Amino acid sequence: MHYFDTNATTPLHPAARAAWLAAQDECWQNAASPTAGGARANALLEECRAKLASRFTPGTKIIFTSGATEANNAVLAYEATRQPVTHALISALEHASVRLPAEKFLGPRLRVFPACRDGTADLAALETALKRADVPIGLVSLMAVNNETGVIQPIQEAREIAHRHGARFHCDASQAFGKIFKSSLSLLTVFCDYVTGCAHKFGGPKGVGFLAFNSKTCPQFSGQSGGGQEDHRRAGTVDVPAIAAMLAALDVAEREAADPATSNDREIAHDIFESRLLREIPGATLNGGDDPSARVWNTTSLTLPRHANLRWLKRLERHGFVIATGSACTATESPGTPSRVLTAMGLTPEAAARTVRISALPGTSAEDFYALADAFVRGAAELDAEQTSAADNSTTVISIS
Amino acid sequence: MHYFDTNATTPLHPAARAAWLAAQDECWQNAASPTAGGARANALLEECRAKLASRFTPGTKIIFTSGATEANNAVLAYEATRQPVTHALISALEHASVRLPAEKFLGPRLRVFPACRDGTADLAALETALKRADVPIGLVSLMAVNNETGVIQPIQEAREIAHRHGARFHCDASQAFGKIFKSSLSLLTVFCDYVTGCAHKFGGPKGVGFLAFNSKTCPQFSGQSGGGQEDHRRAGTVDVPAIAAMLAALDVAEREAADPATSNDREIAHDIFESRLLREIPGATLNGGDDPSARVWNTTSLTLPRHANLRWLKRLERHGFVIATGSACTATESPGTPSRVLTAMGLTPEAAARTVRISALPGTSAEDFYALADAFVRGAAELDAEQTSAADNSTTVISIS
Repeated sequence: MHYFDTNATTPLHPAARAAWLAAQDECWQNAASPTAGGARANALLEECRAKLASRFTPGTKIIFTSGATEANNAVLAYEATRQPVTHALISALEHASVRLPAEKFLGPRLRVFPACRDGTADLAALETALKRADVPIGLVSLMAVNNETGVIQPIQEAREIAHRHGARFHCDASQAFGKIFKSSLSLLTVFCDYVTGCAHKFGGPKGVGFLAFNSKTCPQFSGQSGGGQEDHRRAGTVDVPAIAAMLAALDVAEREAADPATSNDREIAHDIFESRLLREIPGATLNGGDDPSARVWNTTSLTLPRHANLRWLKRLERHGFVIATGSACTATESPGTPSRVLTAMGLTPEAAARTVRISALPGTSAEDFYALADAFVRGAAELDAEQTSAADNSTTVISIS
Repeated sequence: MHYFDTNATTPLHPAARAAWLAAQDECWQNAASPTAGGARANALLEECRAKLASRFTPGTKIIFTSGATEANNAVLAYEATRQPVTHALISALEHASVRLPAEKFLGPRLRVFPACRDGTADLAALETALKRADVPIGLVSLMAVNNETGVIQPIQEAREIAHRHGARFHCDASQAFGKIFKSSLSLLTVFCDYVTGCAHKFGGPKGVGFLAFNSKTCPQFSGQSGGGQEDHRRAGTVDVPAIAAMLAALDVAEREAADPATSNDREIAHDIFESRLLREIPGATLNGGDDPSARVWNTTSLTLPRHANLRWLKRLERHGFVIATGSACTATESPGTPSRVLTAMGLTPEAAARTVRISALPGTSAEDFYALADAFVRGAAELDAEQTSAADNSTTVISIS
């Protein structure tokens, strides 16, 4: 199978697997135990923390979490209890792991600012909302890269607007690490008050992620309660092997993202792939604009002219290609509900239901991309034929594709 | 090194490692993806869930978490928001991952019931507290096995008392799985409203655990918010490889716990070990009573007549033995603070500071136990000599050991 569902999850990178196994052999003791084995585990943990912190503004603190969902929940839960009481503004593009805890913890103190048709957050609307707010806004949240469209968000500008109006800024960067240049990512996330990351989106294991935060603006920040791990900010026995694996994966992913030869080649392959799809499937459209530089190189959100996205997914699977209907998290949240991201960008629910997500791995070759384009063309013909034959065979069944 | 810090964490069992690696190869896709690979991951996930659920009362629901701390936090957070508003009663023996979220989420609605000198929760006090409560008590929480003393708690009776007074019952069973017979454990936890478990206490990986709950009494229960995973009760991409590894470890641990030959041998070895310590180190005492059947076979809480527990730990480490001063989570929470568990049992802070925890692995042999007893005897002589020499060399330094 050719895998094009990277934004849902990645296979474990061999470097991450090796790091995990090595840590399970050498550093499995409880990092909080005052023993030599505990100290060894703790030294590896702190080495990982320092490596990760070096990617952010000096002074940034890191806590390790079970993933992006925990990190996002912790930010929203903490912000909801801060004094003096404030409101929060999140973009309409946010993942459910930001939106739903925001609704849960902030209730009526939550406001949402809209997206533009090109898939970016509407910064003019953000600015207006902050200017005209009749209540203090404590937090603005905008993701770095949208999981469904791959559109790179104007984080720097959003952060400046938020800070200018006295709000803290949270960036869920789950889909950014390993997909854009390390240097660009540093630029994106520099001086954010909170940045969320997640290992299994860049070749690390599932069940581990992190929150980087500014301890000056968020001095009391803490997540789940219990033991004094993570400087009393996140209780629970620290999963050192998973953290070591995450850092190993991040090193590889960033090295690959930064390799100009590879990245240039795959960007060109991706562009050719998209052009071919648009040319050979008349009526197909790309979400997030035609300018590929506005999106991470690996992601295509494609609205097809006919047939439900789940039918496309199943059809392409028969041809050996794994693609997605959209966010895997949303697939379980409310199957059949049109994507909030796409409707926020102005798509009709009906068009959203004809949209697929294609997200490549760092190792995806030009040949893989071209083979996928071929499969789409073949799939279109097959689905059309199926539809015609179904219509011929029955006058009572109304197609819902 | 001979490892006697099992209650802090266990090395990864080879069966768990194999299950993790197999799942990373075969079932790494996102279990929420509507693809064949997603379905394969989801099938493994649901197989694990069914296996685990079969250990509990029919109708028990399972959600997988990042560990016991998350499960305990989720229970307390959910109970704190239930309507009508109620109070909670937790035992004085609870782990920080129950106590601190209880304080955080319930605030003044939290009450604590005391422990007896033998290390069990004081059920008479629980009953009185429930009878005399001037407010409705919604939840009672008592762990299955104490992490510091190994004392098996009267869960069945506590549950009956709680239910008789209309309160739900939560049991943090993190230290019970794999340490007592599967059948006994089923008895212990049957009909609880919530049961917490944690993989790295029984040979599974860190970063994974579970909460079993009664969906009749806790219909709206949910933890962290976001995607619709875990039947909308716990958001976040499910870590299927870790869950498969946890179930593999649990199978082995329960098989080992249930093997009458092995378990008889090691119980005898453990009894001889304890008797020797008491005989050869005059003034040493066991916490949790002299009846070994009141405790899990693997745990000894030993108060030594002289010297701070950290000095014992370091001394025994030089002889090749890893022991603990107490809970690893507490070691980081507030180093130097006397154990709340031991002081709740009536020990003075000074005696608590002379107490060590010895917790064996399932594979610990009789020889390992006897060698550890020898090391204690040698260590006692060495620490005494060090002390005398320090006193001889200085008249101004007052020993703080």
